[in-house]
Amino acid sequence: MSKNPDISGCLASLSLRVHETVNNNLKNKLMKLWDKGTQVNKKIEDFTVGKDRELDIFLAEHDIIGSMAHCIMLQSIGLLSQQELDDILSELRNIYRMNQEGKLQIEEGIEDIHSQIELLLTQRLGDTGKKIHNGRSRNDQVLLDLKLFIRTQIKDVVVLSRQLFDKFIEQSEKYKQILMPGYTHLQVAMPSSFGLWFGAYAESLSDDMQLLLAAYKIVNQNPLGSAAGYGSSFPLNRQMTTGLLGFERMNYNVVYAQTGRGKTERITAYALASIAGTLAKFSMDFNLFMSQNFGFVSLPDELTTGSSIMPHKKNPDVFELLRAKCNKIQALPNEILLITNNLPTGYFRDLQIIKESFIPVFDEMKDCLQIMTFMLDNIKVNENILDDEKYEYLFSVEEVNKQVVSGMPFRDAYKKVGKDIAEGKFNPGKSVNHTHEGSIGNLYNDKITGKMQQIIAEFNFEKADKAIKALLEH
Amino acid sequence: MSKNPDISGCLASLSLRVHETVNNNLKNKLMKLWDKGTQVNKKIEDFTVGKDRELDIFLAEHDIIGSMAHCIMLQSIGLLSQQELDDILSELRNIYRMNQEGKLQIEEGIEDIHSQIELLLTQRLGDTGKKIHNGRSRNDQVLLDLKLFIRTQIKDVVVLSRQLFDKFIEQSEKYKQILMPGYTHLQVAMPSSFGLWFGAYAESLSDDMQLLLAAYKIVNQNPLGSAAGYGSSFPLNRQMTTGLLGFERMNYNVVYAQTGRGKTERITAYALASIAGTLAKFSMDFNLFMSQNFGFVSLPDELTTGSSIMPHKKNPDVFELLRAKCNKIQALPNEILLITNNLPTGYFRDLQIIKESFIPVFDEMKDCLQIMTFMLDNIKVNENILDDEKYEYLFSVEEVNKQVVSGMPFRDAYKKVGKDIAEGKFNPGKSVNHTHEGSIGNLYNDKITGKMQQIIAEFNFEKADKAIKALLEH
Amino acid sequence: MSKNPDISGCLASLSLRVHETVNNNLKNKLMKLWDKGTQVNKKIEDFTVGKDRELDIFLAEHDIIGSMAHCIMLQSIGLLSQQELDDILSELRNIYRMNQEGKLQIEEGIEDIHSQIELLLTQRLGDTGKKIHNGRSRNDQVLLDLKLFIRTQIKDVVVLSRQLFDKFIEQSEKYKQILMPGYTHLQVAMPSSFGLWFGAYAESLSDDMQLLLAAYKIVNQNPLGSAAGYGSSFPLNRQMTTGLLGFERMNYNVVYAQTGRGKTERITAYALASIAGTLAKFSMDFNLFMSQNFGFVSLPDELTTGSSIMPHKKNPDVFELLRAKCNKIQALPNEILLITNNLPTGYFRDLQIIKESFIPVFDEMKDCLQIMTFMLDNIKVNENILDDEKYEYLFSVEEVNKQVVSGMPFRDAYKKVGKDIAEGKFNPGKSVNHTHEGSIGNLYNDKITGKMQQIIAEFNFEKADKAIKALLEH
Amino acid sequence: MSKNPDISGCLASLSLRVHETVNNNLKNKLMKLWDKGTQVNKKIEDFTVGKDRELDIFLAEHDIIGSMAHCIMLQSIGLLSQQELDDILSELRNIYRMNQEGKLQIEEGIEDIHSQIELLLTQRLGDTGKKIHNGRSRNDQVLLDLKLFIRTQIKDVVVLSRQLFDKFIEQSEKYKQILMPGYTHLQVAMPSSFGLWFGAYAESLSDDMQLLLAAYKIVNQNPLGSAAGYGSSFPLNRQMTTGLLGFERMNYNVVYAQTGRGKTERITAYALASIAGTLAKFSMDFNLFMSQNFGFVSLPDELTTGSSIMPHKKNPDVFELLRAKCNKIQALPNEILLITNNLPTGYFRDLQIIKESFIPVFDEMKDCLQIMTFMLDNIKVNENILDDEKYEYLFSVEEVNKQVVSGMPFRDAYKKVGKDIAEGKFNPGKSVNHTHEGSIGNLYNDKITGKMQQIIAEFNFEKADKAIKALLEH
Repeated sequence: MSKNPDISGCLASLSLRVHETVNNNLKNKLMKLWDKGTQVNKKIEDFTVGKDRELDIFLAEHDIIGSMAHCIMLQSIGLLSQQELDDILSELRNIYRMNQEGKLQIEEGIEDIHSQIELLLTQRLGDTGKKIHNGRSRNDQVLLDLKLFIRTQIKDVVVLSRQLFDKFIEQSEKYKQILMPGYTHLQVAMPSSFGLWFGAYAESLSDDMQLLLAAYKIVNQNPLGSAAGYGSSFPLNRQMTTGLLGFERMNYNVVYAQTGRGKTERITAYALASIAGTLAKFSMDFNLFMSQNFGFVSLPDELTTGSSIMPHKKNPDVFELLRAKCNKIQALPNEILLITNNLPTGYFRDLQIIKESFIPVFDEMKDCLQIMTFMLDNIKVNENILDDEKYEYLFSVEEVNKQVVSGMPFRDAYKKVGKDIAEGKFNPGKSVNHTHEGSIGNLYNDKITGKMQQIIAEFNFEKADKAIKALLEH
Repeated sequence: MSKNPDISGCLASLSLRVHETVNNNLKNKLMKLWDKGTQVNKKIEDFTVGKDRELDIFLAEHDIIGSMAHCIMLQSIGLLSQQELDDILSELRNIYRMNQEGKLQIEEGIEDIHSQIELLLTQRLGDTGKKIHNGRSRNDQVLLDLKLFIRTQIKDVVVLSRQLFDKFIEQSEKYKQILMPGYTHLQVAMPSSFGLWFGAYAESLSDDMQLLLAAYKIVNQNPLGSAAGYGSSFPLNRQMTTGLLGFERMNYNVVYAQTGRGKTERITAYALASIAGTLAKFSMDFNLFMSQNFGFVSLPDELTTGSSIMPHKKNPDVFELLRAKCNKIQALPNEILLITNNLPTGYFRDLQIIKESFIPVFDEMKDCLQIMTFMLDNIKVNENILDDEKYEYLFSVEEVNKQVVSGMPFRDAYKKVGKDIAEGKFNPGKSVNHTHEGSIGNLYNDKITGKMQQIIAEFNFEKADKAIKALLEH
Repeated sequence: MSKNPDISGCLASLSLRVHETVNNNLKNKLMKLWDKGTQVNKKIEDFTVGKDRELDIFLAEHDIIGSMAHCIMLQSIGLLSQQELDDILSELRNIYRMNQEGKLQIEEGIEDIHSQIELLLTQRLGDTGKKIHNGRSRNDQVLLDLKLFIRTQIKDVVVLSRQLFDKFIEQSEKYKQILMPGYTHLQVAMPSSFGLWFGAYAESLSDDMQLLLAAYKIVNQNPLGSAAGYGSSFPLNRQMTTGLLGFERMNYNVVYAQTGRGKTERITAYALASIAGTLAKFSMDFNLFMSQNFGFVSLPDELTTGSSIMPHKKNPDVFELLRAKCNKIQALPNEILLITNNLPTGYFRDLQIIKESFIPVFDEMKDCLQIMTFMLDNIKVNENILDDEKYEYLFSVEEVNKQVVSGMPFRDAYKKVGKDIAEGKFNPGKSVNHTHEGSIGNLYNDKITGKMQQIIAEFNFEKADKAIKALLEH
Repeated sequence: MSKNPDISGCLASLSLRVHETVNNNLKNKLMKLWDKGTQVNKKIEDFTVGKDRELDIFLAEHDIIGSMAHCIMLQSIGLLSQQELDDILSELRNIYRMNQEGKLQIEEGIEDIHSQIELLLTQRLGDTGKKIHNGRSRNDQVLLDLKLFIRTQIKDVVVLSRQLFDKFIEQSEKYKQILMPGYTHLQVAMPSSFGLWFGAYAESLSDDMQLLLAAYKIVNQNPLGSAAGYGSSFPLNRQMTTGLLGFERMNYNVVYAQTGRGKTERITAYALASIAGTLAKFSMDFNLFMSQNFGFVSLPDELTTGSSIMPHKKNPDVFELLRAKCNKIQALPNEILLITNNLPTGYFRDLQIIKESFIPVFDEMKDCLQIMTFMLDNIKVNENILDDEKYEYLFSVEEVNKQVVSGMPFRDAYKKVGKDIAEGKFNPGKSVNHTHEGSIGNLYNDKITGKMQQIIAEFNFEKADKAIKALLEH
């Protein structure tokens, strides 16, 4: 078969035409049946095409890159001549540039990015252009695009998470001397510090990266060659495309490669949800601590919104929006689950709908990370919180300990402090002497940073970056 | 205070300016701080304004209507003169027409529909235009708009649900003679019929309407006058606006009126989820029954999509998309819950984010209802399913019963049938004689229709329609 | 067939034996195959029987009542003699009493309550006892039991919700003069009152009842006679059992009756989730307001828990547990959805698993309602909150309005107040004069109570109660 | 302070007494207030203690182990004498044995396992026993117990997942020659095989392990020493307990250590949900393929359940229960999220409620893994599926390719096959020749197994096992 270069072109051309005919028939027939004119026709088109046109633009560069790797492999097994490959790669590079310049658009009447790119190639190269679909199905093509897309997005998220992490550490170090009350049950409990508070969120992000790393490993497996989920009778070289695209390994089993759609998105969503959970919790803290009833933190006026009738109002809208957006991200895994749950093995069109919430979530996540990093930089911290007498009891335990250390038996010390409190004579020193690992006096921010660095190193983004770079310069 | 008509104008003008200033300051400051040029500025603006501009257009007509009722009331308590009221109503009617003609847009730099409408009024009427905000807060204004919006949307959903219901009943009657296998555990069990199958989904919709009715009753309560959630020192007449807007009653307690935001959307989402569940289940059935392994139903070729390489493929993509979209709708209540959960009493900006998924869900729901009604009309039913020998056992129970009725003791009949089956001699008559209420021979579709009609009547949409009509013609 | 009273007995006996044999075979075979002795056997049994034995005890009384109605109907269509009916009813009444005295247990080796009751009847009445299964399937029997169970549980929930509602109203009236700060964005905003705060939760409960009423109407439809979801060839009189059991109507379509399983539980869970949402929100408020940073409310020491090392700690654990339990209840609808989603029409054993979370949720909900009613009664309210100077700005709007009413132009008044604030001279009177419907000065608790009463009346529990009473005294 | 060994004992004793007093007071007061006798008292106790007594028994061994490590550390910093340490360790080992023999029970009136163990120690050792609470809070103690518990549970889950994995691979190899139809859209599409089908689920489990590994890494960090979330003024040596308990590292920041509660459970639940998703999907496939309409697989009669009236019924109840139980597990992350969402930093009693669903989920997961491994072993595969003519079209693509390879131009071959199909002459050879990686002819099960092994090795369970063993033999 590999001896006959014409075949694949015919197949591809046929494919494109069948596909278009089917869709045109559907539209025409529907128009006739509904017979309510253009508005209805639009409704049907909207229903089947959905938001693919807007969403697919996010996949464009990955579709081009995936096609490059696929064609190099096709040439290696004799399904493309060297000349055909050179022509195709050259044109794909042109289209890649078009896309980078924002000039690649899905034209009216073309339903998705894959068809658009094939169309451009065919317009420029004739039958040769049609051959890029050989040995591939729309199913593994979309899946590949999604995985390449997620891979770049995860990298962005890691970079921005690291920036936010650094900001938390920076603030933790900056304010490590400033005490604040620690609460349990929202009741004043024991002394804490801004150093501890900011540092806690840094460490939280480091655990979130652990989950994101697992998602990355699951994403970073090559589905190309699984075709419609049952493989192909062409002698594809999947190991070759795996290498060209810088994947860690391939999704070996072709049935699983396809089953992985939906699951890949869900697991990635778990990881994003975890990061979002960290940001949402900090936002909750911040909004609470900025209430006049706490007054621990404030924002410059320019970063609050006011009220039209209450001149004293300074509302932390940005942190409220951060909280809500992050809570919405936390709802995503369940949405994906509800779409895919109890579907048997094999591709279903249902999977298309996942894209509607999944593709935009990365921009939402990245916005939240950036905005929070910016806001953190502008937080003002109240340095005299503990002067307020309602926080005196924070020090009761410290006081008992202090007396004990200076020789008084514990039982006596405890009683004395208790009596002082009851009689209103309790007047504690307000210093704390916590020295163990991870405590007020010993934040261990360097250890936390080390952990973060170590996890990020495990992503090994260089491997994928290098492969893609090589491919584009092939 | 009501003696001084200037006051309210000043207040309103002040309000608008304060609001704008705050936002401009925010933007300028951010631009300076980020110092990365326009792209960053866009990011911040996107973050705080979010999707409000696109979404608010859905609220425009309701904002205008709400303002009309509010102004009539303001005049009645002396906060507007008759002339001012006439001018405002006249201009609001103009803006209403603009909107109906699709000409109302939120201009660059205006953050939401409420500001846009106030701006138009002020451009045309000067200070008088600013007075419409008197005795109102942005909070109760948005809440009112949302409730008026949901009210019209629920009506649309009911109308389309009724159309789908009628189609189910129609198909149930049309195919009531056609038997199909009934399954339990996906194992062939007992005889069923297309009459039963289609009719089941009609009745399911009638229960869904019950839930939607509850949502409607909860929505159909007037929040206007609750201001920022703590009422107003103006002598507002809330009963009057309740009547003018055709609400069933008011949300009495002003704190609860505001707390109702988020809750109202969640409960409405429960009801939509229930309808969506009915459609998703039918879609699952349909996709299963259209598999070659069942072959109970089919679609005209024009309503299926094909494959580029497998000429035999006819895929029910539309029903797959229906299933997925409806499953996504079923995820909405949980998303809203996650955004609002554990927030204490009082308005938070978080509530704005709910709009992103909530406002579009109605179009999604209505599309699904319409498309399914259309598809149902085009389903082809296989009339000879039971000729296949694998369904013979369906009739084993019937056969035992038949023999018994003609005199043979049950134990003997059961044994005889069992022996016939074992020896391959089982050759049952394939007729069923089910006569009780709701069974194959007695579908009770008229009772189901009666129930549907009765529930829909309870919505009493006329009341709201009449009130709005009167208001527009005031 | 109805001429031969032996048949039904044979059928029933056969049925029971087949069922048992199947299960014993399963167990024996498994034991042999696993060959790891008793522990494994226990594991398999646990897996298939699950928690049915513990859970079914909640269904016992309803199973008995359902059987009574079914048998009366069977006699009316000639499938039981009058004597057989009398014997069965008499024994069922005995078993009912056994159950009320806590003496009905599911014996070792009997897998569920239905088998247990049939066994008792058969031990006492011989073949006559077996006849109660005629014209019924385990499927519609369980469904009926569940519906009768839910009906009684909803009534309990309504009664307890009403008690809690009354307590909220009582506290609202008691503390209507006591002002508290109203917050937006957790920022001090405008004056509110304990009257408004408590009253808001009363009104919230009234809306929750609306949703529960919808659930009740969906539950209160008779599934008996739908058998395995495809009806029966017996000439059942479903209208008769509908009347005997006091149902509003029947689930007409037999396929839908069975499809209703899972859906019924989900919709009921939506309604419980809504009530739980109200309780969780109040608990969040309470825990916040009891923080030393608010100090609006407190609890008697006996209702708080302390700390072993911090003598000043008084933690509101009960309200935290209320919040968490209610949040868990809010997660239930999604759990049910995930179990049932994308299952095609027809019974599946999956539905059994829903019982594990669904049956206990009523006791959890009722506990929460009772405990909260009790706690509310013991809340202490701080009557001097607004003496704290941080709340002075609450009155800025009031102050402007006051000056305006006494003649000063608004612009001047606004400026004056603003200047006073800036110069630290702002010293407002701390009274509010809100008079409109639902505001501090006019709580409208009577209207809210009227609404609650009206919704509760619509449940019309008397109808079901009367029918069940008549049946037990038949 | 470390010079005075009496202090810590006093503190501990005081602590216990305060705690008990508080709880007794609560109970007595409540009893008096409710004044409805014992039943109400039981209700309150049930409400506050909840299911802790049943659940804590799962934590018992870990509580003992954690106390051992803590006490060794206390001795090293001078808070326990060597003799005291020896006595405590000796008694803890006795209690550990008691627990292993099933003799450790939480006595009436003792609220949790921690109190029970302290009580036993104190009964045996007097004041020395009370010292184990020094430098610890109930908060970090529970957190530690949970983490040690989860660690052992994850190991069990990995071991059982590996067994199931091996069974999937075994069946994949056993049936690799047996073809089955591959579906897309539930429409017959292309040839697949049982080798591919079983192998796909093996590979799916390997990805699930990736997520579980991330959870393990997040769990495997030592929280001990974080006390109530704000550390301690004692000079604790957290690195020492980290080593003694075989943790990978510590949760450095003490505030984050406490914030990690809830988050740890949620992330673990994500990982379990992913495994459950794999099992649920296979169960869905199995139930579908066992329908008479597919007939691809069957079970021995002993592993199915029958029907009392339809002798032909053989229902796959076990796979339905597996599906439902696994779907329930997939709902768990959202439940945990709803309980913890929007809670600010610091301990809340809410976290206790997570235990109710979280602790039992491991037994549920492990049961599902074991039962599925067992069931898989007993599946019968239909070896002649493709003889059915409805699957002939599966081979249309293969046939085209074959003709092409033997010289016919593609366009002609495609047309010829199309014509043959249309004229009913299509009579394809039913062999497939897929050779690329992961396809029917080249399953790559060894690569999948290698991947599984590699991931499991990364857990490095030996480290924890060795540490615990050393501790018990200390």
